[in-house]
Amino acid sequence: KIRHSLIISQIVSFFTLRTVFYGTLIGSGAAAQVVTSRGTHGDYLTIQLGSALGAVFGIFVARGVSGAHLNPVYSLSLCVLGRHPWKKLPLYSLSHLVGAFLGAATVYLQYYDAIQTFSGGELLVAGPNATAGIFCSYPADHLSFWGGLVDQVVATALFLLCCVALEDQRNGPLPDGLHPVLVGALILTMGVSMGSNCGFPLNPARDLGPRLFTFVAGWGEEVFKAGGGWWWVPIVAPFVGGLLGTLTYELLIEAHHQTTPQSPQQEQEAVELEEVVVDSGNNSKTHPKLLKLSKIYSKQK
Amino acid sequence: KIRHSLIISQIVSFFTLRTVFYGTLIGSGAAAQVVTSRGTHGDYLTIQLGSALGAVFGIFVARGVSGAHLNPVYSLSLCVLGRHPWKKLPLYSLSHLVGAFLGAATVYLQYYDAIQTFSGGELLVAGPNATAGIFCSYPADHLSFWGGLVDQVVATALFLLCCVALEDQRNGPLPDGLHPVLVGALILTMGVSMGSNCGFPLNPARDLGPRLFTFVAGWGEEVFKAGGGWWWVPIVAPFVGGLLGTLTYELLIEAHHQTTPQSPQQEQEAVELEEVVVDSGNNSKTHPKLLKLSKIYSKQK
Amino acid sequence: KIRHSLIISQIVSFFTLRTVFYGTLIGSGAAAQVVTSRGTHGDYLTIQLGSALGAVFGIFVARGVSGAHLNPVYSLSLCVLGRHPWKKLPLYSLSHLVGAFLGAATVYLQYYDAIQTFSGGELLVAGPNATAGIFCSYPADHLSFWGGLVDQVVATALFLLCCVALEDQRNGPLPDGLHPVLVGALILTMGVSMGSNCGFPLNPARDLGPRLFTFVAGWGEEVFKAGGGWWWVPIVAPFVGGLLGTLTYELLIEAHHQTTPQSPQQEQEAVELEEVVVDSGNNSKTHPKLLKLSKIYSKQK
Amino acid sequence: KIRHSLIISQIVSFFTLRTVFYGTLIGSGAAAQVVTSRGTHGDYLTIQLGSALGAVFGIFVARGVSGAHLNPVYSLSLCVLGRHPWKKLPLYSLSHLVGAFLGAATVYLQYYDAIQTFSGGELLVAGPNATAGIFCSYPADHLSFWGGLVDQVVATALFLLCCVALEDQRNGPLPDGLHPVLVGALILTMGVSMGSNCGFPLNPARDLGPRLFTFVAGWGEEVFKAGGGWWWVPIVAPFVGGLLGTLTYELLIEAHHQTTPQSPQQEQEAVELEEVVVDSGNNSKTHPKLLKLSKIYSKQK
Repeated sequence: KIRHSLIISQIVSFFTLRTVFYGTLIGSGAAAQVVTSRGTHGDYLTIQLGSALGAVFGIFVARGVSGAHLNPVYSLSLCVLGRHPWKKLPLYSLSHLVGAFLGAATVYLQYYDAIQTFSGGELLVAGPNATAGIFCSYPADHLSFWGGLVDQVVATALFLLCCVALEDQRNGPLPDGLHPVLVGALILTMGVSMGSNCGFPLNPARDLGPRLFTFVAGWGEEVFKAGGGWWWVPIVAPFVGGLLGTLTYELLIEAHHQTTPQSPQQEQEAVELEEVVVDSGNNSKTHPKLLKLSKIYSKQK
Repeated sequence: KIRHSLIISQIVSFFTLRTVFYGTLIGSGAAAQVVTSRGTHGDYLTIQLGSALGAVFGIFVARGVSGAHLNPVYSLSLCVLGRHPWKKLPLYSLSHLVGAFLGAATVYLQYYDAIQTFSGGELLVAGPNATAGIFCSYPADHLSFWGGLVDQVVATALFLLCCVALEDQRNGPLPDGLHPVLVGALILTMGVSMGSNCGFPLNPARDLGPRLFTFVAGWGEEVFKAGGGWWWVPIVAPFVGGLLGTLTYELLIEAHHQTTPQSPQQEQEAVELEEVVVDSGNNSKTHPKLLKLSKIYSKQK
Repeated sequence: KIRHSLIISQIVSFFTLRTVFYGTLIGSGAAAQVVTSRGTHGDYLTIQLGSALGAVFGIFVARGVSGAHLNPVYSLSLCVLGRHPWKKLPLYSLSHLVGAFLGAATVYLQYYDAIQTFSGGELLVAGPNATAGIFCSYPADHLSFWGGLVDQVVATALFLLCCVALEDQRNGPLPDGLHPVLVGALILTMGVSMGSNCGFPLNPARDLGPRLFTFVAGWGEEVFKAGGGWWWVPIVAPFVGGLLGTLTYELLIEAHHQTTPQSPQQEQEAVELEEVVVDSGNNSKTHPKLLKLSKIYSKQK
Repeated sequence: KIRHSLIISQIVSFFTLRTVFYGTLIGSGAAAQVVTSRGTHGDYLTIQLGSALGAVFGIFVARGVSGAHLNPVYSLSLCVLGRHPWKKLPLYSLSHLVGAFLGAATVYLQYYDAIQTFSGGELLVAGPNATAGIFCSYPADHLSFWGGLVDQVVATALFLLCCVALEDQRNGPLPDGLHPVLVGALILTMGVSMGSNCGFPLNPARDLGPRLFTFVAGWGEEVFKAGGGWWWVPIVAPFVGGLLGTLTYELLIEAHHQTTPQSPQQEQEAVELEEVVVDSGNNSKTHPKLLKLSKIYSKQK
């Protein structure tokens, strides 16, 4: 019985808290707040802070029980690097799609009164009373098809490049607990520097899930028609950009860790530790434990 | 004599610095500044920064001598999780109510001239010269009763879910000193994404205490009548949401820590530490101390 | 010869980099930028960020060679707590006064063109083209004398209370390098919640130094006459508030560290460390070193 | 074959990811976004956040394989301090010039549609539809030649002074991973307090590279003529200011580390460690390892 409950809660967890659910709820909530209050309760920066902080706490909640992937592009990146099994990719992607859908639904629930009042009851994709932009990405008027593609490839490439760099222990240590904060800062970075063309989707599940929700919830098929059938660009381009960014990092940085000499201090420390090890093997009985202690210790650094 | 003084200061401390007094003073002060300066000394974001930073420093001041609860909903959550005695809940809640009342009084004292000048001496709850919103939560015009209830349940559920996650050592380590900062970031998150419906009270004592102060200080019974008798929603809904969030975390994340396999690195470290222990018991006299040293050490990680 | 140079540079350093020079330069610079650009290059928040970040980097520069006092009120607080010799207080205060004067002079140098263009060459204390507010504190129109006194006493009391709390190791640990950042966050807190009455001076040297500079540099005696002779309030009130805040912390928090039971985990660790010590004294020759090692280790935590 | 690929990727990396490429891309991107959206997608603060965050992630990406110099002025500073070989300075400077050029090109690519729409196809250096300011520094109307020179010398001096202070281990420890964040905070500091005269270039490569790009890409020779031939000021002045700041730090802070007594606690720890060492040499065989362990340990602190 308990085992059954655990399995069910595991599944529910897999499709909600371990996904981009939380990020969607906070990010789209921040947009809903600014749009429906007509800018009295926030501005462009607070929306970006919402997107960033939603990711931060999404990772803090999920980091212990899953890798806190939150983005199929990131999962793909890990698959390519051999750090995640390929066969798990479809299910992970699906879970984020479901999570983002549910996140959008929760935002609509929480802002139902506000959206109804703001839009006069008409759920529109374009125009001064449009509310679809709260949930997913639409291109700015000036953006061409190729411009949008380039924007998303460049932005996601940079995003993944940095994500991979932050996780590369050999590139430099990071205190526990700072990593989620820096991923949030990275999303804020994207928001302030690459957000005006099409809202920096970066995440296919985070874009398609809420789009499907708005399709179902009353915004209708316009959500797929708008921007000349824009909807598939933020699904395809991020995968391309993500791969590009990951490979760029691997080729231009990761590949050179072996060939790059360590700093003098690091080398000195390595030599000293080695001496402890060598001495330990020869001299006395208490050494092996010290050896282990020092090994454990050296891992921490 | 000294003992008496200590008891008195303990009591005073219990009803002031160990409560949400500090958070109320900073948070409502930030609102007072923006409202009375008609937006020349801050904007929506600075108010949210005030709420967030008030919590951060409230925790830094109180964390050593109390658990820095600051919110009865959080105390309730800890009671449910068995980490705080139930019988202390009423007194803790009362202390926060008193602390928030005193915080509001201090804000009024500090902004007395500004509020009088801004309002022309009339202390109003609604209208362009309203000042009651500086102190506690009132619903936006668009908000229905059920909408307000949903808003507060959803917001407090997410808030507590994250609070519990941040304290769950098994979900991931957090450097000392980062925890209060992240709680502040969490409050900022709520402010930028769930603040436009009714100002994200989240904390019954923080809302009722200042409301009682404004009732006494001259705003009158309108503070309880406004919004169709809104005042009890931010008292009841947060408890419901807080419970929901806590239980959701326990069921969807905490319950799976046992069933989730540890990372390879963690397992390796555990094995090595065990070896130290096993060896220690067999070989030599100096082992028990090393064993203890390594135990203490391993705790830190 | 080298010794002479060292003494001279020590003296120069004592009156510049080890003072609030840096903080004045950044903080007043941020105000100069917003005022003279008429809000196109920043807003109220960026001024507060400037004040906060100026303090952060002022501390980072000076922390190794002085205690990074930066504020005579803080020095007074340390004197009262017995952590700083009273006889050094006058010289420290003087050095900050000089540092703030030089900081203001540097701001005027850097923004000379901008201030001349903005003000049409007339250096005024009040009116739409006033520029004196860039350098030091003036009361808002609504503020009464007593209101200003209360504002500064309350604000400085809270400020010092938090400063003392952040440095109280027994109240909780803080990672190296986070302390200066939190002092900056504390100044930002004051800026967003207690800045609209009179600009939260908090620091007598930081206020009087730049005021003296503006008096000398062409704003004239109006800098002392404005606000009904306001100038002495931000000198006297912060000392009163600072003392109040320090004593409040000592009485309401510090005094209870002994009487407050530690957390179970802390107690357990203390017991284990004690066992190591006791064992060490009895059993074997290698113990004293382990004892010391563990002592040193325990200090770090 | 692999060796050849490695060399090529090393070279590509040297001229892109290890330079200010990333910082230019994010920083100029943030400006492009605000300018072309006419302020609907950000404001002055978000541009500064872009500049700051671009530096943060530029350092996080490059810190493992290069020193993450990112600025020729910083390289010069390290050369003067004897921490970097002089002969590498020209090549490093060139690489940053190339990186900044490529970063500007990427921004133009990503914002091509937006810039064309905003400017009506005319690439202008001045006027309401000017877009050259997205890429590099131009003086404000009020700024005189000498004013600009002073601004850049003062700003870069302070910037380098802080950079050197943050890296001075003897001035105080900094947790791994916090250093890049603080450099970002430092750039934000410059942006909010010294940005309105001429946009705080601070970095000759970051300014000249994008200027060359705009010259080539269609803005024409006006980019060199504007501001009375301003272009060389942000190239020369930062070197002067950087040297000044570095030397000021060395003379006023670094020179006194030896002569400044350590804190009582630090001294006590030093004495205890010394005792361990002394004891170790006399008493028993296990001491040398403990000695090394404690040495390694003491390094960490």
